[in-house]
Amino acid sequence: MDLEQADRDRLNRFLDTIRDRTGSFLGYPVSKDFDYKDLFEFFKYPLNNLGDPFTPSTWKVDTREFEREVISFMAGLFRAEDDNFWGYVTNGGSEGNLYGLYLARELYPKGVVYYSQDTHYSVSKNLHLLNMRHIMIRSLANGEMDYGDLLETLKIHRDKPAIIFANIGTTMTEAKDDLIKINAILQELVITEHYIHSDAALCGGLAPFIEPRAAFDLADGADSISVSGHKSFGSPIPCGILIAKKDNVARIARSIAYIGSLDTTITGSRNGLTPLFLWYTIKKLGMNGLKKRVMHSLDIAEYTEKRLIDAGINAWRNENAITVVFPQVPAGIREKWQLATADGKTHLICMPNVHKDQIDEFLYDINNSR
Amino acid sequence: MDLEQADRDRLNRFLDTIRDRTGSFLGYPVSKDFDYKDLFEFFKYPLNNLGDPFTPSTWKVDTREFEREVISFMAGLFRAEDDNFWGYVTNGGSEGNLYGLYLARELYPKGVVYYSQDTHYSVSKNLHLLNMRHIMIRSLANGEMDYGDLLETLKIHRDKPAIIFANIGTTMTEAKDDLIKINAILQELVITEHYIHSDAALCGGLAPFIEPRAAFDLADGADSISVSGHKSFGSPIPCGILIAKKDNVARIARSIAYIGSLDTTITGSRNGLTPLFLWYTIKKLGMNGLKKRVMHSLDIAEYTEKRLIDAGINAWRNENAITVVFPQVPAGIREKWQLATADGKTHLICMPNVHKDQIDEFLYDINNSR
Repeated sequence: MDLEQADRDRLNRFLDTIRDRTGSFLGYPVSKDFDYKDLFEFFKYPLNNLGDPFTPSTWKVDTREFEREVISFMAGLFRAEDDNFWGYVTNGGSEGNLYGLYLARELYPKGVVYYSQDTHYSVSKNLHLLNMRHIMIRSLANGEMDYGDLLETLKIHRDKPAIIFANIGTTMTEAKDDLIKINAILQELVITEHYIHSDAALCGGLAPFIEPRAAFDLADGADSISVSGHKSFGSPIPCGILIAKKDNVARIARSIAYIGSLDTTITGSRNGLTPLFLWYTIKKLGMNGLKKRVMHSLDIAEYTEKRLIDAGINAWRNENAITVVFPQVPAGIREKWQLATADGKTHLICMPNVHKDQIDEFLYDINNSR
Repeated sequence: MDLEQADRDRLNRFLDTIRDRTGSFLGYPVSKDFDYKDLFEFFKYPLNNLGDPFTPSTWKVDTREFEREVISFMAGLFRAEDDNFWGYVTNGGSEGNLYGLYLARELYPKGVVYYSQDTHYSVSKNLHLLNMRHIMIRSLANGEMDYGDLLETLKIHRDKPAIIFANIGTTMTEAKDDLIKINAILQELVITEHYIHSDAALCGGLAPFIEPRAAFDLADGADSISVSGHKSFGSPIPCGILIAKKDNVARIARSIAYIGSLDTTITGSRNGLTPLFLWYTIKKLGMNGLKKRVMHSLDIAEYTEKRLIDAGINAWRNENAITVVFPQVPAGIREKWQLATADGKTHLICMPNVHKDQIDEFLYDINNSR
């Protein structure tokens, strides 16, 4: 049996459409400069990284040895203690956030979750799913958490464990909540029962390479971190990496042991290709290559901000951000470059694949629209 | 930058290992006769089926039009009412089960979940995650739910909405809970507030093609169904399809509308390749091709059962099951054929790619082991 010609033609036309659409977006935090041709042969096998990457399995058609190497590499990037990390490759940043919050709930069933109003909407979905008590904290103008509001709010709830959901790069302005400031507040109020999860969907792949280093990782006081794989690293399939402290996961494992499962992941069957993509990118680029990509993004972001300001547009960006924010631009331009817009603000994200000529073309469109 | 030769060699060796391991398994419900070469070009683009497949999105690098066709096809297979279905392609059967239970909880926050002791362990994880009250029901010897125990248990809890988690093919013996019997019990006890979710991970792709048709789908009283894509259909990436009633999902959508999101899926970023795989398989095989695969599996299962019985082994299978169950076999054989074993029982699953010569070789090993 084979595909009918009409279906085959449709697929070919669709491939052209996808190629065009990929060519012209500047508004989403997704790298498109990946090339996994070398791995195409693996697409012929039913890979499945069943269950926990660190426990043995009778099922052998998996890439869990590569997954463990990816986890170790990321644990290093996020400055985990040498023998106290655990993690797995998730289906995306959201699953990592869900896992972090789940872990926090298991450790502190009576805890309250604090998160800023600039937090991604999927987090509210997760909190609803997990049935966790939560309080939204105001944001500062740049998108960062309002630490004053956090302090005042925590003061009222000192009797409850505090679960802080920190944004390490908000969706709209790439603002980073500062774990040093957050920890100082927790200390001031002597809230010793606390858990901090860093949602580093975009910046988890950028911040480790930028000086001064943002305060976001395990050495800065985070208990778990979620980062996307298809954002800064690049992948044809959404994926992510969750890193948590092994001793915390061991406690959660005990709490679910009564159900007779040692599987501490959220899903059972897991993608075996995405760990291979991530491994390939890490090996191919190495620390130097990864850093170079980030520096390129920063250069382009600086260039974009400057060109927009020179054109009389009120553009700005957070410190060391690759996201440039400016007042809402006309619909035709937003459509062409697939630019997200909210509350009168449009943003452009200078992912590693963005080059000056694209920015120039975008500026040409902007100038022509006036 | 490029991969070092040592890494490249390692990948090549690993590919050989995966090829070998795939060749020799008979114990997992995973089809391996897929061929998606025609779709390899799509692996070059950052596909992402962001959010709900049925609502518009500014992000355009997606395959949501194909996803909607897959959902329509599956809704037809599962006899949904013409204009009352919704669904999406998930990351696997577990996510579909989580979604079904989540939907049930939103509709009946005070509901109690009933599920048999043969239920997959991931369901207990899901119930724990969702914080839902639950009662495990005894199983019959064949793995089916003990309807007598269900009746007695429901009698005691007639004041609570009943959420039934039905197995349409248990992991170990492929037993199918009967929705007609379950509905009769609910009617007898006049429990009008009820929800039935069918976990049809394996059999969702088989049962629609087998007569007499098992009672498991929306026309039989299910409110939602989860089926795996990598099991009966085949895929190099774990995936699944969740089908639910549109009016129920509309109610859940209202309940999460206050969080400002119209996204009714669980994850945000979603795989764009797996809907394309499923679409391709459906188009390539069509109803006839899909049915032929199932009939082949049934033939092989009958052959396997007979050959084992002829060899003096106490093999059996549930009605119209492709899973053959027999007393535990020696470790060497279990290892070679990657056969799952629990409670002294081993099973062999006759997926569409299994052929008589493999069964003959397996029987040869069995006979030689005595």
